[in-house]
Amino acid sequence: MAMKINLSLPISLFFLLAFFSTLAFAKKETEVAADPELITCKHQCLQQLQYTEAEKQMCLQSCDMYHGLKHEHEKQVEEKIRKKIKDEGAPQEHDEEEESGEKEEEKAEEGGEEEEEYPYIFEEDWDFDTKVETDDGRIRVLKKFTEKSKLLKGIENIRLAILEARAHTFVAPRHFDSDVVLFNIKGRAVLGWVKETETEKFVLESGDMLSIPAGTPVYIVNRDENEKLYLAMLHIPVSTPGKFEEFFGPGGRDPESVLSAFGWNVLQAALQSPKRELEKLFDQKDGGSIFQISREQVQELAPKKTYWWPFSGHSKAEFNLFTMFPNFSNRYGTLTEAGPSDSRSLLQKHNIMLSFTNITKESMSTILYNSHATKIAVVISGKGGLQIVCPHITSRSNEKHEKSSPSYHRISAELKPGMLFVVPPGHPFVTFSSRKENLQILSFEINAKDNKKFTFAGKDNIVSSMDDLAKELGFNHPSEIVNRIFDRKESLFFPFKLPHEVRDRRGDA
Amino acid sequence: MAMKINLSLPISLFFLLAFFSTLAFAKKETEVAADPELITCKHQCLQQLQYTEAEKQMCLQSCDMYHGLKHEHEKQVEEKIRKKIKDEGAPQEHDEEEESGEKEEEKAEEGGEEEEEYPYIFEEDWDFDTKVETDDGRIRVLKKFTEKSKLLKGIENIRLAILEARAHTFVAPRHFDSDVVLFNIKGRAVLGWVKETETEKFVLESGDMLSIPAGTPVYIVNRDENEKLYLAMLHIPVSTPGKFEEFFGPGGRDPESVLSAFGWNVLQAALQSPKRELEKLFDQKDGGSIFQISREQVQELAPKKTYWWPFSGHSKAEFNLFTMFPNFSNRYGTLTEAGPSDSRSLLQKHNIMLSFTNITKESMSTILYNSHATKIAVVISGKGGLQIVCPHITSRSNEKHEKSSPSYHRISAELKPGMLFVVPPGHPFVTFSSRKENLQILSFEINAKDNKKFTFAGKDNIVSSMDDLAKELGFNHPSEIVNRIFDRKESLFFPFKLPHEVRDRRGDA
Amino acid sequence: MAMKINLSLPISLFFLLAFFSTLAFAKKETEVAADPELITCKHQCLQQLQYTEAEKQMCLQSCDMYHGLKHEHEKQVEEKIRKKIKDEGAPQEHDEEEESGEKEEEKAEEGGEEEEEYPYIFEEDWDFDTKVETDDGRIRVLKKFTEKSKLLKGIENIRLAILEARAHTFVAPRHFDSDVVLFNIKGRAVLGWVKETETEKFVLESGDMLSIPAGTPVYIVNRDENEKLYLAMLHIPVSTPGKFEEFFGPGGRDPESVLSAFGWNVLQAALQSPKRELEKLFDQKDGGSIFQISREQVQELAPKKTYWWPFSGHSKAEFNLFTMFPNFSNRYGTLTEAGPSDSRSLLQKHNIMLSFTNITKESMSTILYNSHATKIAVVISGKGGLQIVCPHITSRSNEKHEKSSPSYHRISAELKPGMLFVVPPGHPFVTFSSRKENLQILSFEINAKDNKKFTFAGKDNIVSSMDDLAKELGFNHPSEIVNRIFDRKESLFFPFKLPHEVRDRRGDA
Repeated sequence: MAMKINLSLPISLFFLLAFFSTLAFAKKETEVAADPELITCKHQCLQQLQYTEAEKQMCLQSCDMYHGLKHEHEKQVEEKIRKKIKDEGAPQEHDEEEESGEKEEEKAEEGGEEEEEYPYIFEEDWDFDTKVETDDGRIRVLKKFTEKSKLLKGIENIRLAILEARAHTFVAPRHFDSDVVLFNIKGRAVLGWVKETETEKFVLESGDMLSIPAGTPVYIVNRDENEKLYLAMLHIPVSTPGKFEEFFGPGGRDPESVLSAFGWNVLQAALQSPKRELEKLFDQKDGGSIFQISREQVQELAPKKTYWWPFSGHSKAEFNLFTMFPNFSNRYGTLTEAGPSDSRSLLQKHNIMLSFTNITKESMSTILYNSHATKIAVVISGKGGLQIVCPHITSRSNEKHEKSSPSYHRISAELKPGMLFVVPPGHPFVTFSSRKENLQILSFEINAKDNKKFTFAGKDNIVSSMDDLAKELGFNHPSEIVNRIFDRKESLFFPFKLPHEVRDRRGDA
Repeated sequence: MAMKINLSLPISLFFLLAFFSTLAFAKKETEVAADPELITCKHQCLQQLQYTEAEKQMCLQSCDMYHGLKHEHEKQVEEKIRKKIKDEGAPQEHDEEEESGEKEEEKAEEGGEEEEEYPYIFEEDWDFDTKVETDDGRIRVLKKFTEKSKLLKGIENIRLAILEARAHTFVAPRHFDSDVVLFNIKGRAVLGWVKETETEKFVLESGDMLSIPAGTPVYIVNRDENEKLYLAMLHIPVSTPGKFEEFFGPGGRDPESVLSAFGWNVLQAALQSPKRELEKLFDQKDGGSIFQISREQVQELAPKKTYWWPFSGHSKAEFNLFTMFPNFSNRYGTLTEAGPSDSRSLLQKHNIMLSFTNITKESMSTILYNSHATKIAVVISGKGGLQIVCPHITSRSNEKHEKSSPSYHRISAELKPGMLFVVPPGHPFVTFSSRKENLQILSFEINAKDNKKFTFAGKDNIVSSMDDLAKELGFNHPSEIVNRIFDRKESLFFPFKLPHEVRDRRGDA
Repeated sequence: MAMKINLSLPISLFFLLAFFSTLAFAKKETEVAADPELITCKHQCLQQLQYTEAEKQMCLQSCDMYHGLKHEHEKQVEEKIRKKIKDEGAPQEHDEEEESGEKEEEKAEEGGEEEEEYPYIFEEDWDFDTKVETDDGRIRVLKKFTEKSKLLKGIENIRLAILEARAHTFVAPRHFDSDVVLFNIKGRAVLGWVKETETEKFVLESGDMLSIPAGTPVYIVNRDENEKLYLAMLHIPVSTPGKFEEFFGPGGRDPESVLSAFGWNVLQAALQSPKRELEKLFDQKDGGSIFQISREQVQELAPKKTYWWPFSGHSKAEFNLFTMFPNFSNRYGTLTEAGPSDSRSLLQKHNIMLSFTNITKESMSTILYNSHATKIAVVISGKGGLQIVCPHITSRSNEKHEKSSPSYHRISAELKPGMLFVVPPGHPFVTFSSRKENLQILSFEINAKDNKKFTFAGKDNIVSSMDDLAKELGFNHPSEIVNRIFDRKESLFFPFKLPHEVRDRRGDA
């Protein structure tokens, strides 16, 4: 075999040279010429007195070959590493966040159609980690917002969890190292809040909100015989930002009690009980932390309704968002907002507002943006659509002119129950319902203090509020035309109808 | 051609081998010997029974060649990548910040003379990004402070932008996802602040300050016929830290309106106008976001002066820093400070104070440091100099003794209009004017609450305030001498004269 | 030599080819085939009409060679770089912190026995940097908490320093760019606080606390003739998070004065003294920043006791933690807590509480957790033990079931004077004393507002406070048994005795 190859060696070498040379030549005109190593290499070739002119040429060529090869490797290796590193999100640093955040979205813009859905859209299936799962329920935690996009750094300390529990289940006692804003999306729950000397019981209906300070031991019961319970829990970690943990303190079932991790000496001394008794208590493995209980047990855990209600011995939520008087309502939708007002509430402490939007079928919210609040929204019922507009500077080139042209990218998503989306402040967005169902959205508005809503359509929109000349200069259009387009009597919610039909409707009126 | 090369192939190959071998040999003595891949390669060479001794030698040599080449690549590629990554500030991590921050400055110390100017000095040309630029104006944004130095992490959420607009220009309506502290450095502006039902107009003269909450749509007019307008805008992003965006909402010119990114269906339904009309409104490309307007338009946009001023229908800035009564004044300089006092102002919300320093020509400020505030200073007129002193532990070696000797590094800069500098708290600094002009500096003092100024020279300086024995122990000098050196009647601003001349002057007095 | 090599060229080339081909073939089956560059290369080979079949084969082979070489390099270089970067802790990013934090502990779990002591345990010898060290004293600074563990990000801005000074020493005047909570662990100090026009003197005994705002120039005297002085200084940097510096302003000894870094012109103009005089003042090298002084000097610096005390002209600490009335006390231990209550104190500003725990010998604290506070504890006297329990999800696999089983990891440490430990909120922990000595612990409780202590044993523990059915469901045990185990009359501190002995003791009662 050696022989065979020997014969074609010159040819092979030729290809090698030719191939490598291509690389070298491609680079030559740019930085290659300036590379000191290359210059030295070539210099040494020319200094070899014993070389013939041809040998010197070959020598020079070998410099180029080596250099081209080296350079090519460098570039490609680097690119590959960068890419990998980027994919892992690893060495992007604080200072790069701005850029990388933009890149992420630019990718979205390039790669996909305009209907691409990231970085503010969270899918039920992809963006949650299942933290707890038993036959009778589960707790899913939304991934860290900054894992989704660096642009969400402002809410990186906030985590959202969804608890689902089947009918007649018990969610075992635990505490969190996070303040928790609990919202009952759907179902009938009893929450046991362990206080210093007793357990206070809260009856939580759909729409109820309760804030639970970090460390508080709580258990939860789905007291409904048939329906599943859905709770949204907004966690605000008090220790490590963006990270919280469950501690199963007072319970020895499958979710191991934290106590069982202490040494036996400590436990015996603290609890004054012999080791075998403690072992029996702590060494059980069954059930999991969410499990079914009997109707009798549910009844015993749930306070009975009595004539003397509300003196029946149970406590109530801070408010019920679904039954509050709405802040705004018309035939196309309602908006209900709550907090932060009560100084004892965690809403006040963490500057969070809850809002509930109910868009009538075939309707839409106006185009608006929040001035300060970041909206974390959960679709709780119905179907529809969402459009958010994000700004990006199209060109980072060095052209002196036309830097004044940012372009805006639309993020669109179909909405369905279980989906989440985030709208940063300043970003105009719109939501609309399908033809068949109302669209109901629960929102946690983070950084709610001083927040204002600015609308682009409907009564008091910011275009109509401009003085006429500014309008004309801004739109390069007579102000009458701008006014005709932007003026509209309705506020906040409109029918989702194209103008033709509407014109007719107006004609009717 | 193949033929021609064939002839010189042996020579060419020789060079290749020779060249690669050099690389290989250079490495041989160090880590090359230990590389398992190389050892395996050579081992396999020696195991080939059919090889002659010469063939084995060649085989061994080819191992070295490959290895040397590979190794060389690795090293160089790595170095190059590291360099690039470093230049971009990428993979320096939180925990490393302290160290890397120090390294940066250590470099400054090693590499340069004592007159090196980083990391607290910002040049007009180098440290700004031009965000908007048209024929009639531009908006430049100072790079993120942490991009300049990790030491500035404390103010990383703050961004400074400078707007320049030619005479009689219109800066099109927009809003920001950042609270903005606007300061009119120079010029005569009208600002249109779009409110719910109308546009409030602010007349802003040089020295005027106005705070604009995030989301507020504003437009700006340079109403002067001849002079350029210079506005400083301190942005405090409300969403992504250290990052803000412009949103051109109510305007359809070249800076594309955010509205145009929504789907046509949404726009038609929201605005109840046919698509062709909307297309006409949004699909214009001209002008850019800063453009010239006619004298008549300026007059219409600017409120006229009337006899009933200030009842003429326009609003005024929160204060004018240039015309306020100064906090301190002597013949060598004046200092004027404002905020945070009004609870509605963004200065209060973000704990920022504005200050204006006017140093008479041939004068200096005293040597002082701020206890809590980080000073972001913009030179607005005149020339002069700056010295800041930074601490660094000279030696990180393990010697037990003399760890008690930090050394201090002087950062010096020549000051001229448009330059920026930052002085962190605790760092003593001094500014002085040139012989020909007053030096005027506008400062944003971040974290201004509880801030105190401590001086090293002049009345009430901290050396004179020490008890005599502490002085003696501190300086290892009789307290009378220390007192003689540090005592001085003037405060805050002095003539920049060497003692000899001053003695004479004192003699005169 | 050229000749000699010429002869063996074919052989050499053969080896080269063979060697490179191996690389190429090894990759062929995987990604190599898909590499567009390789495909193009081969395609071009096949398109060369003038090539013979053999030449085409060689051409193809040269493609493989090049590609294999390139690929091999890429992989290895990348791996090497990654490793290096990783070793330096560089590219772990925000979003990875959670994970990396966990990894750290998982490592601890895997590698070590359950008695592994990190990440919350700080050893006197390993985890401090000596910032200042002279013959007469030293200042050691605890490493950044986040350097120890990402889990401690919540307290990353806080730094702890310990000052030790021999009898009759002077700690030279300096200021910090950090607010300082100073606590006298042991010894008799005088602190000179330089104010605007004079120096206020504070007498600080063991247990005294004083908060010193950033920028304040202070000096310290150990006025005891025999005993060492130990001060704990909690620094809260006001500028760069987690980083503070010492500034030796008013002093020209070995710790160079910051003034000496200014230019001579500036110093002469500011201090109106000739250069040679200033040189004499600033250019001394001796002593270091902590040095012995005479008995007479100590007496002069320390205010004398007079009949009119406390009108003797010296000021006192904000409080003395050792002599305050304890919040809780029984024969097994006492707990004393202070602040944040006084609004002028830095404790209030930074939301910090100080606590002092004195556990009688052979006793223990109850098992408890803090709801909001992170405890930074310093052992100041005695020996004993510590157990902290941390949660970790055992399995991150995709099994649907048994995700509900977090497991808890015990961190244990032997306690002795000088050791530090941190307990994050939510984490149950226990401390106990040795048989021979009381165990005394000073704690800084960070984020102290709204903090509550929840106990697992003793009066009002959270298990006993649960309603019976919840207990039964939680423990899967009759509530009587749970009650018998958890009920106990004592609170907070217990004897560290195993139940057998206790039973006897109970029998006696």
